[in-house]
Amino acid sequence: MQKHTDFNDFAEITAQASITVDRHGWRAKCLQRLVRLGLPVPRTVAISAAAVRAIAAGQMPDTGAILERFGPLPLVSVRPSPGRTAWGGPGTMLNIGLNDAAHAALSASHGEAAATALYLRFVQSYAIHVARLDPDRFAADAPSPEALRAALAAYEAETDDSFPQDPARQLAEVLRSMARAWEGTTARLLRQAKGAPAEAPLGLVVQQMALGFGPGVSGAGTVQFVRSDTGTAQVTGRFLAQSQGREGLAGPAEALFLARDARGPSLEERCPELMADLLRHGAACRAHLREEMQIEFTVEDGTLRVLDAVPVARGPRAAVRIAVALAEDGVIPREEALLRIAPGALAELLHPQVDPAGPRDVFARGLAASPGAARGAIVFSSSAAQAAAARGEACILVRRETVPEDIRGMHSAAGVLTERGGMTSHAAVIARGLGRPCVVGASGLRINWRDKTLTAPDGRVFAKGDVITVDGTRGEALAGSVALVDAALDDAFRTLLDWADEVRDIGVRANADTPADAQIARTFNAGGIGLCRTEHMFFDADRLTVMREMIFADRPDDRRAALDRLLPMQRADFIRLFEIMQGLPVCIRLFDPPLHEFLPHDRDGLRDLAEALGRPLSEVTRRAEELAEFNPMLGMRGVRLGITLPEIYEMQARAIFEAAVDVGRRGDAVVPEIMIPLVSAMREVELVKARVDGVAAAVRVREGVDFAYRLGVMVETPRAALRAGDIANHAAFLSFGTNDLTQMTYGLSRDDAGRFMGAYVSQGVFPEDPFHVLDVDGVGELLRIGAERGRHTRPDLTLSICGEHGGDPESIAFCRRLGFDYVSCSPFRVPLARLAAAHLALGAI
Amino acid sequence: MQKHTDFNDFAEITAQASITVDRHGWRAKCLQRLVRLGLPVPRTVAISAAAVRAIAAGQMPDTGAILERFGPLPLVSVRPSPGRTAWGGPGTMLNIGLNDAAHAALSASHGEAAATALYLRFVQSYAIHVARLDPDRFAADAPSPEALRAALAAYEAETDDSFPQDPARQLAEVLRSMARAWEGTTARLLRQAKGAPAEAPLGLVVQQMALGFGPGVSGAGTVQFVRSDTGTAQVTGRFLAQSQGREGLAGPAEALFLARDARGPSLEERCPELMADLLRHGAACRAHLREEMQIEFTVEDGTLRVLDAVPVARGPRAAVRIAVALAEDGVIPREEALLRIAPGALAELLHPQVDPAGPRDVFARGLAASPGAARGAIVFSSSAAQAAAARGEACILVRRETVPEDIRGMHSAAGVLTERGGMTSHAAVIARGLGRPCVVGASGLRINWRDKTLTAPDGRVFAKGDVITVDGTRGEALAGSVALVDAALDDAFRTLLDWADEVRDIGVRANADTPADAQIARTFNAGGIGLCRTEHMFFDADRLTVMREMIFADRPDDRRAALDRLLPMQRADFIRLFEIMQGLPVCIRLFDPPLHEFLPHDRDGLRDLAEALGRPLSEVTRRAEELAEFNPMLGMRGVRLGITLPEIYEMQARAIFEAAVDVGRRGDAVVPEIMIPLVSAMREVELVKARVDGVAAAVRVREGVDFAYRLGVMVETPRAALRAGDIANHAAFLSFGTNDLTQMTYGLSRDDAGRFMGAYVSQGVFPEDPFHVLDVDGVGELLRIGAERGRHTRPDLTLSICGEHGGDPESIAFCRRLGFDYVSCSPFRVPLARLAAAHLALGAI
Repeated sequence: MQKHTDFNDFAEITAQASITVDRHGWRAKCLQRLVRLGLPVPRTVAISAAAVRAIAAGQMPDTGAILERFGPLPLVSVRPSPGRTAWGGPGTMLNIGLNDAAHAALSASHGEAAATALYLRFVQSYAIHVARLDPDRFAADAPSPEALRAALAAYEAETDDSFPQDPARQLAEVLRSMARAWEGTTARLLRQAKGAPAEAPLGLVVQQMALGFGPGVSGAGTVQFVRSDTGTAQVTGRFLAQSQGREGLAGPAEALFLARDARGPSLEERCPELMADLLRHGAACRAHLREEMQIEFTVEDGTLRVLDAVPVARGPRAAVRIAVALAEDGVIPREEALLRIAPGALAELLHPQVDPAGPRDVFARGLAASPGAARGAIVFSSSAAQAAAARGEACILVRRETVPEDIRGMHSAAGVLTERGGMTSHAAVIARGLGRPCVVGASGLRINWRDKTLTAPDGRVFAKGDVITVDGTRGEALAGSVALVDAALDDAFRTLLDWADEVRDIGVRANADTPADAQIARTFNAGGIGLCRTEHMFFDADRLTVMREMIFADRPDDRRAALDRLLPMQRADFIRLFEIMQGLPVCIRLFDPPLHEFLPHDRDGLRDLAEALGRPLSEVTRRAEELAEFNPMLGMRGVRLGITLPEIYEMQARAIFEAAVDVGRRGDAVVPEIMIPLVSAMREVELVKARVDGVAAAVRVREGVDFAYRLGVMVETPRAALRAGDIANHAAFLSFGTNDLTQMTYGLSRDDAGRFMGAYVSQGVFPEDPFHVLDVDGVGELLRIGAERGRHTRPDLTLSICGEHGGDPESIAFCRRLGFDYVSCSPFRVPLARLAAAHLALGAI
Repeated sequence: MQKHTDFNDFAEITAQASITVDRHGWRAKCLQRLVRLGLPVPRTVAISAAAVRAIAAGQMPDTGAILERFGPLPLVSVRPSPGRTAWGGPGTMLNIGLNDAAHAALSASHGEAAATALYLRFVQSYAIHVARLDPDRFAADAPSPEALRAALAAYEAETDDSFPQDPARQLAEVLRSMARAWEGTTARLLRQAKGAPAEAPLGLVVQQMALGFGPGVSGAGTVQFVRSDTGTAQVTGRFLAQSQGREGLAGPAEALFLARDARGPSLEERCPELMADLLRHGAACRAHLREEMQIEFTVEDGTLRVLDAVPVARGPRAAVRIAVALAEDGVIPREEALLRIAPGALAELLHPQVDPAGPRDVFARGLAASPGAARGAIVFSSSAAQAAAARGEACILVRRETVPEDIRGMHSAAGVLTERGGMTSHAAVIARGLGRPCVVGASGLRINWRDKTLTAPDGRVFAKGDVITVDGTRGEALAGSVALVDAALDDAFRTLLDWADEVRDIGVRANADTPADAQIARTFNAGGIGLCRTEHMFFDADRLTVMREMIFADRPDDRRAALDRLLPMQRADFIRLFEIMQGLPVCIRLFDPPLHEFLPHDRDGLRDLAEALGRPLSEVTRRAEELAEFNPMLGMRGVRLGITLPEIYEMQARAIFEAAVDVGRRGDAVVPEIMIPLVSAMREVELVKARVDGVAAAVRVREGVDFAYRLGVMVETPRAALRAGDIANHAAFLSFGTNDLTQMTYGLSRDDAGRFMGAYVSQGVFPEDPFHVLDVDGVGELLRIGAERGRHTRPDLTLSICGEHGGDPESIAFCRRLGFDYVSCSPFRVPLARLAAAHLALGAI
């Protein structure tokens, strides 16, 4: 309940006063801290959030009583003091109290020009921001007595009232205006976007003006002791003589640097004692406020006043370095350094980004499917991308949508842009896995494959070879080659993640299909490979040919002969992976996709294939048609293929075991993990296990070496989760493939969902895209059921998640609550997952 | 444990003897009943199953002691007495005891010819069935003294031993032979196929021979008092003078009819007192054995002997009439009549069947997708089927697989044959719904669309117009026009189902999309329509055009204009349905399929469409491509379409309400049920409900009539089942669509599963095809969770199942256990479901 005296709830900020963030807002409390540190803060009165709410509701505080504290000719500023510094608030108002009398007095003490300039600026800003008059009538004219008179006359003409002369009334109107602005819809939406509750409190602080004008050394400036872009130590800021507030920051030529600087004169040279004071104050702030602050100060006739201090603005890179430095200096504990970095902020650090300072010529917008930025010449096919890569030219692969055969092209391209697809479309998933910047679902693009042109929604036409930039962080395609800033994998980043590993209690592995992926996983200190998809290994030109021979084999023997030719290639793949991972666990998923993905889709491709295989086109076409499926997602793939054509899994198991033996002979023992995809019944696991065990026995005998391995199940169908109790009888681990599990639980194809997912999320039908954020209520329920039933059968069952969700902090939190052993995610998400897991262990999520 | 005296466990069958089915088998017990009824059964000794098992293991009973009971020159038969009559058993052996001495004695008493014929036949059958000698050496020569000598010589030559003259040895060998035959693999498999346990017991009965030869009236015959094909009362059977066993049944010209018969002389005329005895015995059997029996009898010099009685063999039609007649005559209670009919047997009654007596020229085999048989000329397209129907010609639609547009063609065809697809493929589901005989997945067929020919696996080629027969009961395609027998919807059938309705405690509705379906549903006394799919209503040529205009509309207003033209058609559809169903509940599912199903799939079709719409081909092609989906099953359909293009559901709701008002004005109030398809989140239901409520309010105001309706959800996604607690807040009913739910729970498209389902089931990976028999462990678990959570929120929530499983007895049992209110199935499955539900209420399943 609001008390009737709330509107007079104000207090002078002294070391002893009872000032709290909850009651008076963040800034009031910060100013009290500065006072307690002995910084020269001008007299300040804090108006409580309760009072501000009462003022917004129409009650008026006794502003006369407030102004009494500021002497007979009070001159004050009012600043917002929201609950958190990030929540913004109305702009600061300076020089409240200026009227004809104060103007006369100031003219006498500081000269008429300065006095007139201040009065004019106050009238202008009061008219626009407090009286809400037409800004055009109060344009920022050069200060002069005439301009001042004109402004006062305009005010009178617009309001039928003269400019208020009573400082108490001025202050009352300013307070009311700021209180109401905070309640406005725009401000509300803005602060909600920054995470504030709709009813977030706002306090206000009324502060004695420090003029920055007048005789001696007078002026205003800001100072901070680290760079905002990198977080490295460096005194930064400007000081402008005869100025107020932050004018100096705009960097007029006459503004002084602070520390000595080759570019021009500095405050350190002009007023070394002032500079020494600033450095001392900065050090005190850092030590006691436990943060890098930006300090706003004014010098009045040589006397330093500290008006305000706010945390230094910073990008993610600077944030990491500042937090690590504070912890290394013992200012904050390591745990707090970890908690100061939002896991999501790391994503931006891992890829080059479009320079935020550069110009942006956006020609298409889509979904930010894979972060980072890349520049290159447009290509419209994977083969063109590979050709460009062979020539050493950066290219951007532009496709309507990508298909599995495009994987080589995506590998070769610097970035990917597609017209169709959602956050978990093929293009998006693969791009994230490869760490390629990618924008998908850029609807309105028209790709003319024949002419090799791309038409933007605004009608602009780009031809093959034209250079464009893909900004996968913002989901935009930009014309031309835009300036980029580099990835920031610095020592601070590594230190922070080492600390994260010390505290977290859930494992983090990477999804890695290739040696390149595995290398990145190692770079980012993944605890192993949680999902190695083997099908991508078959798209190399030479392997694809053998795969196709296998598909066209009429008898098991012919199939086996083709597979025998693939065996050494697969073995070499696994040897490379085991070598790179140096004994860390590698979980290999057996062959999963439907066979038709390995066949050409068009007539030309089929004709080429018929020639290559030496079979009639009609037969090749017929086989391709036979393999076509209505719903490939729900078709003949995964373990269904493994049981129907057992030779494939046998070959893979042999390749895995032989690779393990080979690498084990030369180093640490390798204990491969073999994962069966798309299981829906226990018997499927039993059958595959029997065959794999048989292969292992044969390899042991032939190689004369014993080795261990673990066999487990990828839980992708709702039925596998429901039957986890049975399945765990034959599985050492269950890894939840939440991409497919989400598709099946919702009955929703990720490739087709893009068409309406945006509308669904914006209408609140789904609170989030379930392919992006794990659906705890539905899919999560299956995870819970599966985990419980699996562990009931086998208490030491290893549980993990290996879908795209593995890198999402909320999903990691959910898995940790269920007692999962690890999460596995794209290599580029590993740092984020490590930090998120640390936050969880610290109880922060 | 087997006692050492088991092999001598035999007992003479008298009224007082302790004979049980468990110990001596079904026939021994039946014979005791006949004895108790005072029927003239020759002396009979029952050998227990324990003894038979001991004999098979090598021990020999004291056959001398058995034969002592049959006098100095014993002549006996041995018949099997299995635990149930249906389990079969080794063939009966007659005339055991015949040897040279008996031959001489018989020659004296009955004449040498008869004695020689009997001895010869005994030697032959002993040699073949007991001594297991080469049957070719003992061919059934015409009886003569030479033939007898030759047979005895052959026996000696083959066995190095003369034909056994000791009756005790003969009997011992016969018993051993029959006991061992019962243990053989073939017999074991045969009886297991009939539902017997592998270790089923077999007793044997040794019976005094009644010769049927000799002076006076002598001979043998069988009699039954109902027809085996129809079950109607009629004395049936033949009597052959001077014969044994069942020789008369083969119907030689000299065999007498029993009752007076225009076709020839009868026993009734020749020996009226014998016939009177038979009728009396028959009536006694029916009343006391509570079954229609076939009686085997012999007349020895005018004296009647009843040797055996077995239940009359019968098809499903006769079974129903016999059971109903027994109950109507008060012989058995109605409940027992119900329990005597297996629900599955009814399926055969509802469609004409291939005459089992006719020749079968099978050219292709597939899945028995929809029962019954149909003949017609081959057509290869739906339009050809419609043209044939217009000419009044029966045709069989032959397709690689069917697509939704084929529905008109399937309607027009007498039967359907497809090369691809499983039990729940489009063709199978629609054919069952339409009651059209259908064979799907007839792999090995080659359809040459261009030449309009069909090549069978054996190379035979059928051309368009050639007549074939589809046997959907057996899953076969037959060349030519095969004789059929009619459906048997007789009064007994109706009576039985009325009794079923009196006892069952779960509702049965029909899935019915058209007035024709609804009419069948009424004929079969369905309790309402549980699933009316509205999309089929849009495939008529005139409607399809408007649908396509709607799809190509650029703005909501254009879409609404097209839908306004569909409104009166939809309203008329619903008026017809409501009229036919006469106040019974009708549950209408809102539009479900993806829009691309309404567009042509080939270039020609697209060109026609472009012309019809007056739009450029490129635009039409582009739109069709835009609508194409990777996984249509998991795409933009159901409620997703309903929310994205809300005008469709609004039109449908309006049509439903206006139809309800219209029909309600002319008769009973209609309370339509509206069902939302493919729900996965509560908010989807909320959004649709708000719009439907709005339409209802508008119709109420415009029509000035109040009406009620119920809105519910089709649970087809695992998530809807998991979230049933939420969803029930906005749904009056939940109906589980187990077709789609099974697809999503398994991650298995029913259209693509056919390729491996057969192998999967035969390898035991899945115990049954889950599209055929509800997967209680997985999908059933979701039904359980959904039912529990839904009822927790809303205790009066109506629960039902409306997938193909709704007509399967085991699935009905499962739903009943979960407390479901009703099941809904194809109209032609309604009788089966009604009976199965009665069995459940009677505790029989």
